[in-house]
Amino acid sequence: MSWAEGFIAVDWGTTNRRGYLVEADGRMTDEFEDDRGILAVGEGGFPEALNQISERLGDRPLLLAGMIGSNRGWIEAPYAPCPAGLPELAAGLQWVEPGRVAIVPGVSYLAGNRADVMRGEEVQILGAFGDGLVPADALICHPGTHNKWIRLDDGRIGAFRTVMTGELFNLLREHSILADLLREPARVDAAFERGVAHGLDKDDLSAELFSVRARVLLGQARREEAASYTSGLLIGTDLRIGLGEGGDDDVVVMGRPELTSLFAAALRIAGRGAREVDGEQAFLAGCRHLVELIR
Amino acid sequence: MSWAEGFIAVDWGTTNRRGYLVEADGRMTDEFEDDRGILAVGEGGFPEALNQISERLGDRPLLLAGMIGSNRGWIEAPYAPCPAGLPELAAGLQWVEPGRVAIVPGVSYLAGNRADVMRGEEVQILGAFGDGLVPADALICHPGTHNKWIRLDDGRIGAFRTVMTGELFNLLREHSILADLLREPARVDAAFERGVAHGLDKDDLSAELFSVRARVLLGQARREEAASYTSGLLIGTDLRIGLGEGGDDDVVVMGRPELTSLFAAALRIAGRGAREVDGEQAFLAGCRHLVELIR
Repeated sequence: MSWAEGFIAVDWGTTNRRGYLVEADGRMTDEFEDDRGILAVGEGGFPEALNQISERLGDRPLLLAGMIGSNRGWIEAPYAPCPAGLPELAAGLQWVEPGRVAIVPGVSYLAGNRADVMRGEEVQILGAFGDGLVPADALICHPGTHNKWIRLDDGRIGAFRTVMTGELFNLLREHSILADLLREPARVDAAFERGVAHGLDKDDLSAELFSVRARVLLGQARREEAASYTSGLLIGTDLRIGLGEGGDDDVVVMGRPELTSLFAAALRIAGRGAREVDGEQAFLAGCRHLVELIR
Repeated sequence: MSWAEGFIAVDWGTTNRRGYLVEADGRMTDEFEDDRGILAVGEGGFPEALNQISERLGDRPLLLAGMIGSNRGWIEAPYAPCPAGLPELAAGLQWVEPGRVAIVPGVSYLAGNRADVMRGEEVQILGAFGDGLVPADALICHPGTHNKWIRLDDGRIGAFRTVMTGELFNLLREHSILADLLREPARVDAAFERGVAHGLDKDDLSAELFSVRARVLLGQARREEAASYTSGLLIGTDLRIGLGEGGDDDVVVMGRPELTSLFAAALRIAGRGAREVDGEQAFLAGCRHLVELIR
């Protein structure tokens, strides 16, 4: 079967993968998610892991994106350097099986002392642009384990910066002296707002984190507030760095809704407009646009 | 036996403990270290854990300092608030067995939005002052899992601030996406110097950490440099926060020599004089001075 008759798109990450069946007319008619991320599959296991997808969703050409193309994935798809748009991604596809199985390259950014990489977010960002959900020039915030701030310039990824906010929060919650204080889910509440304000205003993250515990020990804050405050503190710090990437317009916040809502709330506390875009919809849009360029 | 005939001093931390036999003339004549920190002993186990110390070092009065006095230790010794000197610590001793077994209180600091606590470092700091190793007014840096910056005012702890540098480095090395890059020991080399300079100059720690990996992936830095650079970056960030605690004189760096040497090197890169004081000697001095106040 050819790409024009429909295809399978896979967002293949480090710990999970999501597969989607896309029909010839662009509708997504079937999907699945499992825990067969690249670490669970491991070297040598990818042909069989791909067969499982075909058995699950049907015999169609496959477009694979995310960490599957990293040096810990199946076959390395070299990064497309900035500026990178949909044509650059299509030109950089790594063909595992010519005409039938392709891996989307990530995007790299080098300028002066700055160095950065992404894998997976580029499909969402350029897909949202391709579908008109994001203007050609925009500042995009893409929260996740590694939050990305992306400058879209004339419809291409011109520059971007990664802030390790999600990973730092997870490390603190799972392994640090703050672990017992961070079990509650973070919410957008007064403690979150105070945390965001501190992070936006002060550049003392690695000290303020310890204060979270000290305040509880000294009766200056309630235990129940710690998770929301700490989440706000990390996100406010993230915004202080990311908003430096420029622009005055509304920020587009793209990704999983439970994360985009936290970042959008923090942006409004920072006095910036925020518009949320669902990451899954953007991913499917990106895959459709890439397939249009290769079919 | 009375305190005047000699005593046992114990630095009882979260994961380890160190015991010292101090003779009537102040000489330390025996010592041991083991992994019976408070987490390993656990609730109910402390009387027996104390007996082991007496069996090992002899039947003397015992002065216990560190996390043993925390809410996760044996008996909570309430924090002495700043300003706190040797007399305030002696007055705040928590007597487990009257006249024979005492726990040293920690120190707390509250001012405006600032809240902080320490347990264990106060004995070293005030001991070093008591022995004339630190002037009555000084800025002290005490690296460890939680680095402390202490203002000594007229021989008392006037204010202090904790930066989670050591814990953050350990979290990154053991559990993060940088783990495979941080296996080498950190050294004072050109990469360390670049990291310190970045941390002193820029307030983007949570973004710069990701760049460490990106630079290696993009061939802009060697893997072997990552541990020293990251250590320098965290310490430089720490110095930027801690040096804000004031003073122009040499900074006294106190603690374990392998850590004080890194921080002293970073201070010199920052253009500040640094003088190292051995934490173990300072701890024993502090215990002797406290015993003089109670015997």
